[in-house]
Amino acid sequence: MRAKERVDAISGTGEVCAVPGPNFAQSPRMEPQSQTLSAVAAALEASVAAGAVYRRKTLRERTAFLHAIARELEADADKLIATAARETHLDEARLRLELRRTQWQLFSYGNASLDGIPLGISIDTPSAAGGRSEADGGKLPDWGKVQPKQDLRKMQVPLGPVVVFGASNFPFAYSTAGGDTAAALAAGCPVIVKAHPAHAETSCGVATAVQRAAAACGLPEALFQHLEGGFDLGGALVQHPLTAAVAFTGSLEGGRALFDLAAARPRPIPVFAEMGSANPVFLLPGQLAEQGAELAKLLTASITSSAGQFCTKPGLLIGIEGPELDAFADALAKRISIVPPAEMLHSGIAKAFQHKRADALDIAGVEVAGTLSCPVGRNESIPTLATVPGEIFLAQPALHHEVFGPFALLVRCRDAAQLLDVALALEGQLTGTLMATTEELRELPELLEALQARCGRMVRNGVPTGVEVVTAMHHGGPYPATTDARFTAVGADGIGRFTRPVCFQNWEEELLPEELQRHNPLGVWRRVNGVLSREGF
Amino acid sequence: MRAKERVDAISGTGEVCAVPGPNFAQSPRMEPQSQTLSAVAAALEASVAAGAVYRRKTLRERTAFLHAIARELEADADKLIATAARETHLDEARLRLELRRTQWQLFSYGNASLDGIPLGISIDTPSAAGGRSEADGGKLPDWGKVQPKQDLRKMQVPLGPVVVFGASNFPFAYSTAGGDTAAALAAGCPVIVKAHPAHAETSCGVATAVQRAAAACGLPEALFQHLEGGFDLGGALVQHPLTAAVAFTGSLEGGRALFDLAAARPRPIPVFAEMGSANPVFLLPGQLAEQGAELAKLLTASITSSAGQFCTKPGLLIGIEGPELDAFADALAKRISIVPPAEMLHSGIAKAFQHKRADALDIAGVEVAGTLSCPVGRNESIPTLATVPGEIFLAQPALHHEVFGPFALLVRCRDAAQLLDVALALEGQLTGTLMATTEELRELPELLEALQARCGRMVRNGVPTGVEVVTAMHHGGPYPATTDARFTAVGADGIGRFTRPVCFQNWEEELLPEELQRHNPLGVWRRVNGVLSREGF
Repeated sequence: MRAKERVDAISGTGEVCAVPGPNFAQSPRMEPQSQTLSAVAAALEASVAAGAVYRRKTLRERTAFLHAIARELEADADKLIATAARETHLDEARLRLELRRTQWQLFSYGNASLDGIPLGISIDTPSAAGGRSEADGGKLPDWGKVQPKQDLRKMQVPLGPVVVFGASNFPFAYSTAGGDTAAALAAGCPVIVKAHPAHAETSCGVATAVQRAAAACGLPEALFQHLEGGFDLGGALVQHPLTAAVAFTGSLEGGRALFDLAAARPRPIPVFAEMGSANPVFLLPGQLAEQGAELAKLLTASITSSAGQFCTKPGLLIGIEGPELDAFADALAKRISIVPPAEMLHSGIAKAFQHKRADALDIAGVEVAGTLSCPVGRNESIPTLATVPGEIFLAQPALHHEVFGPFALLVRCRDAAQLLDVALALEGQLTGTLMATTEELRELPELLEALQARCGRMVRNGVPTGVEVVTAMHHGGPYPATTDARFTAVGADGIGRFTRPVCFQNWEEELLPEELQRHNPLGVWRRVNGVLSREGF
Repeated sequence: MRAKERVDAISGTGEVCAVPGPNFAQSPRMEPQSQTLSAVAAALEASVAAGAVYRRKTLRERTAFLHAIARELEADADKLIATAARETHLDEARLRLELRRTQWQLFSYGNASLDGIPLGISIDTPSAAGGRSEADGGKLPDWGKVQPKQDLRKMQVPLGPVVVFGASNFPFAYSTAGGDTAAALAAGCPVIVKAHPAHAETSCGVATAVQRAAAACGLPEALFQHLEGGFDLGGALVQHPLTAAVAFTGSLEGGRALFDLAAARPRPIPVFAEMGSANPVFLLPGQLAEQGAELAKLLTASITSSAGQFCTKPGLLIGIEGPELDAFADALAKRISIVPPAEMLHSGIAKAFQHKRADALDIAGVEVAGTLSCPVGRNESIPTLATVPGEIFLAQPALHHEVFGPFALLVRCRDAAQLLDVALALEGQLTGTLMATTEELRELPELLEALQARCGRMVRNGVPTGVEVVTAMHHGGPYPATTDARFTAVGADGIGRFTRPVCFQNWEEELLPEELQRHNPLGVWRRVNGVLSREGF
């Protein structure tokens, strides 16, 4: 293959990090721009070729590949964790858990397709009476008797090459072999990872593990590619005609830039970007009276652990003025003011935190309630609780956005009506949390509705951090939480971001994919003439 | 409600066509632009309020509403068909079938939610062991033992107000109360239809029927709104902050313009635009030898009925030089050359057809094979078969696009290799058809792969026109067939264009929607700890 040779020539044989970024600038013979473009073209051509091979594999072979990646990560675990700890300043215990979660993602997304649910199979045959349902007791009006005349069989197929941009705050779980990569590979797509420069060595180590797994499974090397470079590389990857979809985890600015590039293409492609979220927590007096001290402890950990560098960190606490809120605020302020500063992921994130924190505190009416008063290192963050009256919050949209890091703003509302106004003023969120008694919520149906209209996940009397990797999880939400509220970044349903349906009309059995054959050799779930079943027909 | 009063004030009480377009320009007091903007704002505010009421209705109440619309259309059928025939020049028999199909869409999409499948419910509970599957015989590696700690219950909820732009070529089935409206209402969303100016009176009549149904079901008037106007109205609807999604059926230019507007919004929203498709038909010699004469007859009808004004009209016929293709081409040319001219939907479409036909015939190497030689009316189309050698087709991307109307281009390929090159050169398509014997396809797996990578529906030895409304149908495809290949415009799965997941974490039973309650009072399909079931737990 010409394409493959070009990739090899650029990367040097045996190197997994196929395209070293900094070298571009040092090349005397070629402009960086055109060298980047030709590297991207070579990568995409190789990706398409590898994808064609991968698409012919069975569901079980796909699953085995994802399991093999998890095993290879296990083999390198200690080394990967040590490297990641050095590059990200996250502690080893947390990173060990994160690596395990990453393996579990690969394992469970790999298993997900085996029962056929992500394939979304529907079959309608000419013999069936159309659209009978319990609703009409089998009696249809005349115009309801539409009889299908064709044999139609539909299933999800892979979109094609997916470009993955990992997150700085999860060097394993949302990065190189993280959720987006696992979902794309489970969907049957080849993957090109643009390595995050803040943990380039970790990324490279993880990529080696993935490529060992591919080799062990007899899959083409280019099924998973790992490129290093800057924004020009990322942009070129998103713009290349052969790229079929993009997955991104990171800042609003970064996600939006990629979304705009993809939408402006001659042939637009889907971008799933998981971006910012302030994750509002509503604190009602009844629940604070019952559980205030415990909630203060819970929220302190949720706001400050891993230096607050979670996309689900609760950044807005919204309560109603009164003795319960006072007591809770005191308890939370005391706890937060003794959490020591922590080194952030990298200097860019530390600088952004310091600026955004300062900007928030500069607004008249915003006051510090709890923070450590001691000198901090250049890349460290000071955990901070600030407070603001409801009316000022409502008047200052700048306060509504995420401050990435250990910062939370307590919004003190005059009454329940103002609390509802605050809920209605919020933008799209990954999560919304209700600390409230059942009675309190029964009396505030508008609050539930306002929150449901803005959030992807609604948490009762708990904290939004801790995103479990199960199918019922939804990690997404209306913009700016993500670029498409209809999809999730976590859980096997996220596979659907990278597939599309194809319908086969009147095909002979032998030319159909096994998944669609009459006797259902794989025993997958299918909707046959409207009825879900794992049997043949 | 202030918003409602404003709509009433603009529309005049009792008028269903709320915002008459041409009047804007005649208003002496206000610029058209600002009047359009305030009408759009009023419509969206009323839509959101009506949507809040509708969202609280049960699944059965939603279903009853869609059924009621179908009944109201039945009551007005004769009048609607006569009006549509006058406005569109389509014949009454065809329009009667189309109206029935429209009713069936409303009926079947309304029924679809009752078994819960479109709700995509997943529930994971803390007690369940994570991710066990047959693949591992219940034995998980250490890192596979991830135990859920939270109670997570996820279901699809409506996105919010959907703006629908209907098609000129289906005044019922893809227009005012057509598939997009039916899917959005089944999803639980309020709908605002921008009436198609080419069948404004039909659209108004259909809107009256929908609004009678809403009144009969005790639903708010603004749940379904019908606005008339030009491009500025359409643009303002897409750009309004309260609009949640857009559905469009029509030209590539129109769909792309709306997609670009939506992507450039401060808060981007999904646009599902179903646009152009050349619907290639591959003709292999073995099948032509067996069935050539019959195929010529079948394809003539498919190319010319309703003046070729179908999005699935086969516009490209691709065969391999030889006696079988010669005989087939002769038979097809003879048949097409005796099909009389027909009046097209409107003068704009007729003009576009005449231009695009002339442009194609102007390319050196493109020759007319069969067409009527007689004078035609100004808005009539002449059915035309043209031919072109494979190498010229490959060199002329202009020939790859849809010519909307009764025109087909027969591409004569030198050999099977060139036929494959043509397949690989095609853009995204709604359909791809294979006229071939089983043996011929067995020998051309690359052709199947190339076609599957480009098409939404793959037809065997039949014609692509005739899109059946069943769940297994897929009416969509890679760009430029649609703006998002992951969704369908036909079949109940199209409901998913207008919903998004919300996950409830650790909620008490009484505050959960019925669909998610433990004992499953609605008996809907749910994935509970990975297993599909209609039981409680």
